[in-house]
Amino acid sequence: LGSKSPEKVPEIRRDPVTGIWSILAVERSRRPGAVEDEVVRITAPCPFCPGNESLTPPEIWAVGREGGAADSPGWKLRVIPNLYPALSPGAAGKGWRREVKAGLAARGYHEVIIHSPDHRRSLAEMEPGETVRLMRAYRLRYRELAVLPGIRQVVIILNHGRAAGASLEHPHTQVFALPLVPQVLRDELRHTRRRSRQGCPLCAEAAASKSEGRVVAENETWMAFAPYAARFPFETWLMPVRHEPGFERIVHGELEGMAEIIPRVLRGLSRLLEDPPYNLFIHGAPCDGKDYQHYHWHVELIPRITRGAGFELSTGMYINITSPEEAAKQLRETI
Amino acid sequence: LGSKSPEKVPEIRRDPVTGIWSILAVERSRRPGAVEDEVVRITAPCPFCPGNESLTPPEIWAVGREGGAADSPGWKLRVIPNLYPALSPGAAGKGWRREVKAGLAARGYHEVIIHSPDHRRSLAEMEPGETVRLMRAYRLRYRELAVLPGIRQVVIILNHGRAAGASLEHPHTQVFALPLVPQVLRDELRHTRRRSRQGCPLCAEAAASKSEGRVVAENETWMAFAPYAARFPFETWLMPVRHEPGFERIVHGELEGMAEIIPRVLRGLSRLLEDPPYNLFIHGAPCDGKDYQHYHWHVELIPRITRGAGFELSTGMYINITSPEEAAKQLRETI
Repeated sequence: LGSKSPEKVPEIRRDPVTGIWSILAVERSRRPGAVEDEVVRITAPCPFCPGNESLTPPEIWAVGREGGAADSPGWKLRVIPNLYPALSPGAAGKGWRREVKAGLAARGYHEVIIHSPDHRRSLAEMEPGETVRLMRAYRLRYRELAVLPGIRQVVIILNHGRAAGASLEHPHTQVFALPLVPQVLRDELRHTRRRSRQGCPLCAEAAASKSEGRVVAENETWMAFAPYAARFPFETWLMPVRHEPGFERIVHGELEGMAEIIPRVLRGLSRLLEDPPYNLFIHGAPCDGKDYQHYHWHVELIPRITRGAGFELSTGMYINITSPEEAAKQLRETI
Repeated sequence: LGSKSPEKVPEIRRDPVTGIWSILAVERSRRPGAVEDEVVRITAPCPFCPGNESLTPPEIWAVGREGGAADSPGWKLRVIPNLYPALSPGAAGKGWRREVKAGLAARGYHEVIIHSPDHRRSLAEMEPGETVRLMRAYRLRYRELAVLPGIRQVVIILNHGRAAGASLEHPHTQVFALPLVPQVLRDELRHTRRRSRQGCPLCAEAAASKSEGRVVAENETWMAFAPYAARFPFETWLMPVRHEPGFERIVHGELEGMAEIIPRVLRGLSRLLEDPPYNLFIHGAPCDGKDYQHYHWHVELIPRITRGAGFELSTGMYINITSPEEAAKQLRETI
């Protein structure tokens, strides 16, 4: 540690003043498009396209290949380890830095789910059967990683578009299996637990969004709404109607509902805002064996059409220039 | 509230699930460059240039105008209310939304300090006398706003470059006087208080950064270092060596030291990374009358050369691709 040259294996550090955790992953600087204004254009060959399987680490799982060998074409969906992982199962077990209790091995898993062989077709444009397959892959990876030793939280994230941080164009989702419960989840768990005596705050929000005109879309098992305190223009949350702490316990009907409502909302967003960049992620209860019955898992969808500035970084507050009532109305009418 | 049309006066809302505060300020959508990919180029006339004073709200304060009328040229530094404020002294006193205790009037102040009449010269390029004048203006506005009724926190923020959220090119700093203590400050206050039995964590960090090769620059009263758990490549913190909770109590010598070290580090950063966009802000103790003796005020400088993605938003953790030891070495050698 300290003045020694940086190591190649990722490391998690905690700031002794702010308490914020950061993953130091210097190998990720070699990833194309890592730096903001880099003019790198991902030309040939795309490592996620069929025929280029040898450009990725050996696959973890694939669907649709009938009898073919691993890492060969013919798949319909493919799961691989991230080539530039932020977490590694082999991260050295340095444990905590003694003097300030602020370091932790970045032991975990960082996977990529390649949505389909099609380089161009985004989640919004996939067929219903394909989106169900993708949600099943989310659930499978979530369940497998959540039970591994030392894993406390699994986070599933889809970045769409360069401005939302996607470094490769070919539609894909990242899965992070972390050795700690990250701060944003901790805050949600604490905040909702404190308020859970009056019932689940997310269930209450669903009801409030109906009476306040913030509903974006609905189906039998799911509901999408613009949150009351939206941080970003057109921010949309999608939640299973049934109260349930963890994504891993999604049931038949709910998975299909999820696979229907997510692309429908994305299509509306794409039409309304001309295919904006966005981040989409799943927030569920940690998998550390504790009781989180008060928590209600959900999906957050954040279009990235405005720039974050110093205010957000320095305060943790957001300035939103579009009211969620107006955003929901526009999205609802487009959908 | 609810389904009524959005109001023109900004409003602060708290998310019932996450606990995150957001300011809903729809008027700010009219500001040039508010939306990410807007091609608006701020051409003539710049509202911050001399001769265009009538394009801004009436000034609050100015330096250097010898006998001329307010809002006329001849000033060397000028303070004005933000034309598109995120906070307003006249925000309606709606108080908290009763059913979920989640709304608050955005009552406060949002000012702009125009650094100098020069449209082109950034803080890095200002003369020593000018930077001292600017730091004095920071202190003056901080002190004046901090004692106003209802103000709990004053945050001073400089955004440099479009990618860092600066919507106008002419160098300027924003001052936010807030009716609450924002979450990031709350977290820092709580985290440092918990650890303060072993002494101030920031003082300890200054010592650790020396032994770990993370010092970037020093002078008699200040020190700049790359934090152990840096969130961003080349993130740099600048701190007065003397332990003191609040910026408003900066003393003679310290103010000059601040005016010397900030532009020196910025010049190094500019040479090393070709004038990168950055956010620079002051974190000091709240002005709510409580005891924050354990806290150590400081300046955070965040170059914005990588893109934030879904991981940061969904977890509150950061992935940094440059080790602070390496960043400090490069910056130190450039300076």
